[in-house]
Amino acid sequence: MAEKRKRYLLSEDDIPRKWYNIQADMPNKPLPPLNPGTRRPMEAKDLYPVFACECCDQEMNQTDRWIEIPGEVREKYKYYRSTPLVRAYGLEEALGTPAHIYFKNESVSPMGSHKLNSAIPQAYYCKKEGVTNVTTETGAGQWGASLAYAASLFGLDAAVYQVKISYEQKPYRRSIMQTFGAQVTPSPSMSTRAGKDILTANPNCQGSLGTAISEAVELARTTPNCKYALGSVLNHVSLHQTVIGLEAEKQMEMAGEYPDMVIACFGGGSNFGGIAFPFMRHKIKGEEGKSHTRFIAAEPASCPKLTRGEFRYDFGDEAGYTPLLPMFTLGHKFAPANIHAGGLRYHGAGSIVSQLMKDGLMEAVDIPQLETFEAGCLFARAEGIIPAPESCHAIAATIREARRCKETGEEKVILFNLSGHGLIDMASYDKYLAGDLVNYELSDEALRKSLGKE
Amino acid sequence: MAEKRKRYLLSEDDIPRKWYNIQADMPNKPLPPLNPGTRRPMEAKDLYPVFACECCDQEMNQTDRWIEIPGEVREKYKYYRSTPLVRAYGLEEALGTPAHIYFKNESVSPMGSHKLNSAIPQAYYCKKEGVTNVTTETGAGQWGASLAYAASLFGLDAAVYQVKISYEQKPYRRSIMQTFGAQVTPSPSMSTRAGKDILTANPNCQGSLGTAISEAVELARTTPNCKYALGSVLNHVSLHQTVIGLEAEKQMEMAGEYPDMVIACFGGGSNFGGIAFPFMRHKIKGEEGKSHTRFIAAEPASCPKLTRGEFRYDFGDEAGYTPLLPMFTLGHKFAPANIHAGGLRYHGAGSIVSQLMKDGLMEAVDIPQLETFEAGCLFARAEGIIPAPESCHAIAATIREARRCKETGEEKVILFNLSGHGLIDMASYDKYLAGDLVNYELSDEALRKSLGKE
Repeated sequence: MAEKRKRYLLSEDDIPRKWYNIQADMPNKPLPPLNPGTRRPMEAKDLYPVFACECCDQEMNQTDRWIEIPGEVREKYKYYRSTPLVRAYGLEEALGTPAHIYFKNESVSPMGSHKLNSAIPQAYYCKKEGVTNVTTETGAGQWGASLAYAASLFGLDAAVYQVKISYEQKPYRRSIMQTFGAQVTPSPSMSTRAGKDILTANPNCQGSLGTAISEAVELARTTPNCKYALGSVLNHVSLHQTVIGLEAEKQMEMAGEYPDMVIACFGGGSNFGGIAFPFMRHKIKGEEGKSHTRFIAAEPASCPKLTRGEFRYDFGDEAGYTPLLPMFTLGHKFAPANIHAGGLRYHGAGSIVSQLMKDGLMEAVDIPQLETFEAGCLFARAEGIIPAPESCHAIAATIREARRCKETGEEKVILFNLSGHGLIDMASYDKYLAGDLVNYELSDEALRKSLGKE
Repeated sequence: MAEKRKRYLLSEDDIPRKWYNIQADMPNKPLPPLNPGTRRPMEAKDLYPVFACECCDQEMNQTDRWIEIPGEVREKYKYYRSTPLVRAYGLEEALGTPAHIYFKNESVSPMGSHKLNSAIPQAYYCKKEGVTNVTTETGAGQWGASLAYAASLFGLDAAVYQVKISYEQKPYRRSIMQTFGAQVTPSPSMSTRAGKDILTANPNCQGSLGTAISEAVELARTTPNCKYALGSVLNHVSLHQTVIGLEAEKQMEMAGEYPDMVIACFGGGSNFGGIAFPFMRHKIKGEEGKSHTRFIAAEPASCPKLTRGEFRYDFGDEAGYTPLLPMFTLGHKFAPANIHAGGLRYHGAGSIVSQLMKDGLMEAVDIPQLETFEAGCLFARAEGIIPAPESCHAIAATIREARRCKETGEEKVILFNLSGHGLIDMASYDKYLAGDLVNYELSDEALRKSLGKE
């Protein structure tokens, strides 16, 4: 039997030493965030009271193409990086496709997803500037668990506001955070003004990401030496995630191929940007043999900000406390359906991705929930890894393209990001296998209403 | 900052091509299994009706030192192997020890533990001899999930009898098995004679591994083209697991060190044998610089077969249906305490390990439950990986030795096997963090009784 190379790994020397800042190369730079009160453009220093200062500078940096990864951060990356680039022979065979399918396996991170790539530098920068406490919000808990671990690495105290319904329904991720010493509070809580107001009005409120963000930001603002950290949407988060694509680029070289398509699921844009931006720089520059690559964001049909949303300034949270960001949005009051891909239940896209979308450098597809779980089960049986419900969107989009290749006979090279595993989401698979999941339609009328058009 | 190498990985070419059969090198061979009816020694062919024939031959093979890994099995190993050898700088720092601590990270297997190393060849050999169905028992579900996945890889139908109390308490692992298409039945069930008899006598019986083994073996015996697979204890299972130690040996060479101690947790012996046997061959041969290594099995204080059991012939199951095996045992009627390391709740040790223990080539320690979880939490915070409750025993034993090094100032090299992660065992951590776990004492009186001495 001929031996086929299955996985590609880099030596520790080849783990990236710099992140790639696509802002420097964008034909049209993202528009600036606006102060919600004055509607005037904000500068990096306006964000210093909330985020680590270094992150604020990175957020606004439109000139430096490469930003050095601090040595201490790179040392912690070594605990799980490089992650494998894997040739999905099993999936190719199951589909009978001539396409060559590769995936970047971010699920091998100790916390089970790519989120750690940004949690580590955010905690590090906080530590470096003398901050002692970090706080954030989390839904299902992937981001909260990653920040809890990163905080423990650098000796910071972490306080996580977890959406109450998830706190109760997903006790495993809460336990993970607590094992790392984080203080986890179900949101809304009585510990903040924002939480108290909501609980006074509605004592049985089950919480939302929007509320949890408000609580965490309030805690950061009112606690000495405490800063807030966000797990997606913002530019500096995508920046940190480019380690994914930079590694993948070297690994694809080892495999002797270059992707015709790069696919990732899409919530706020961090795992998509992470794998896509390093490849997209060659497209922007028009490099030979590297300009044709398609970049495909796979979003839930019930939360289709890129395929059906509008490009405009909008708030990052439901209550409207955050700066106004230029984004493809479904409206900041949009209430996503109760799909199991909790990480994709967000109304808006990050500023960079929104601009790239507007400029035609990338595209998007939206996928119904049942198709994503069908894809996830097929992938699990073929490759042995149970994917996170979020990652199932990328797999479903990949399968659509691979089936197209089967029809046309084209040997296209597809690379997708496996952003996380689903071992802590088995209750969702249970429901799918029992036939208890449904697709959610988003009517034009509901969308118009959410966008404030009636 | 000086760069330190954290993880060692092998290229796919360097994944082992042969398993190491320690039986060929043992100074005293293990005694043969005995027919439970006639008490006469059994041969490989006597086991053919139950296990894959190739596995039966491997079980009894006392002459061939190296046994070739079939190409198809090696291809599937590539889906997750080599697993990383990791230098535990974080743990060393947390302990302030001069010891060099390494661990082999088997938790990165898609099913989260080392069990897949034997599930793949067992399913492969079944497929190769024309078997269409495999069956097994499982407690917490690590082994059942691995066999379910391996069966799906080779197109076999899998039926898993899961101990009823685990089936209900650990729904995630049941869902994983079902995602891979396995039929999972809570045991005792009405689908077998053995199950019916038990349920008739006690309709509320919550099941045990002993009962589930009886049901699975009965199914294999009464179903055409169906064979049974076991996840530990037997010689061929340890044989398959030697990929762990063979890889680790090459990886320790890359690190420029040789272990002074090799440590693994101990249930039936498969993960212990897997990491220990390849290193032990140098000790048996008396090779220079490699004869001093200590091999330490870490078992639960409440289930101390190696430290407090007796060496004698005993049954592998509670009911006494299996062949009699020469083993260190607590008595086959021993009822282990309800510790959270489900994989270590077994009364006996495999024949090879029992003989090695008798011959002084290895040693054992037993560790109370609370110490294991304390060690697991310390490890999680230092290395970012939440260990399985079973693996916590190896970590606790490692920490004891590393603290001894701190006292003596010795720079000893310790290698332990991280047999699995604990992401699906967070309910156990929850209980530990809440102070709801206890240590279980095993009184001399209870032990004498279990060994039939009164």
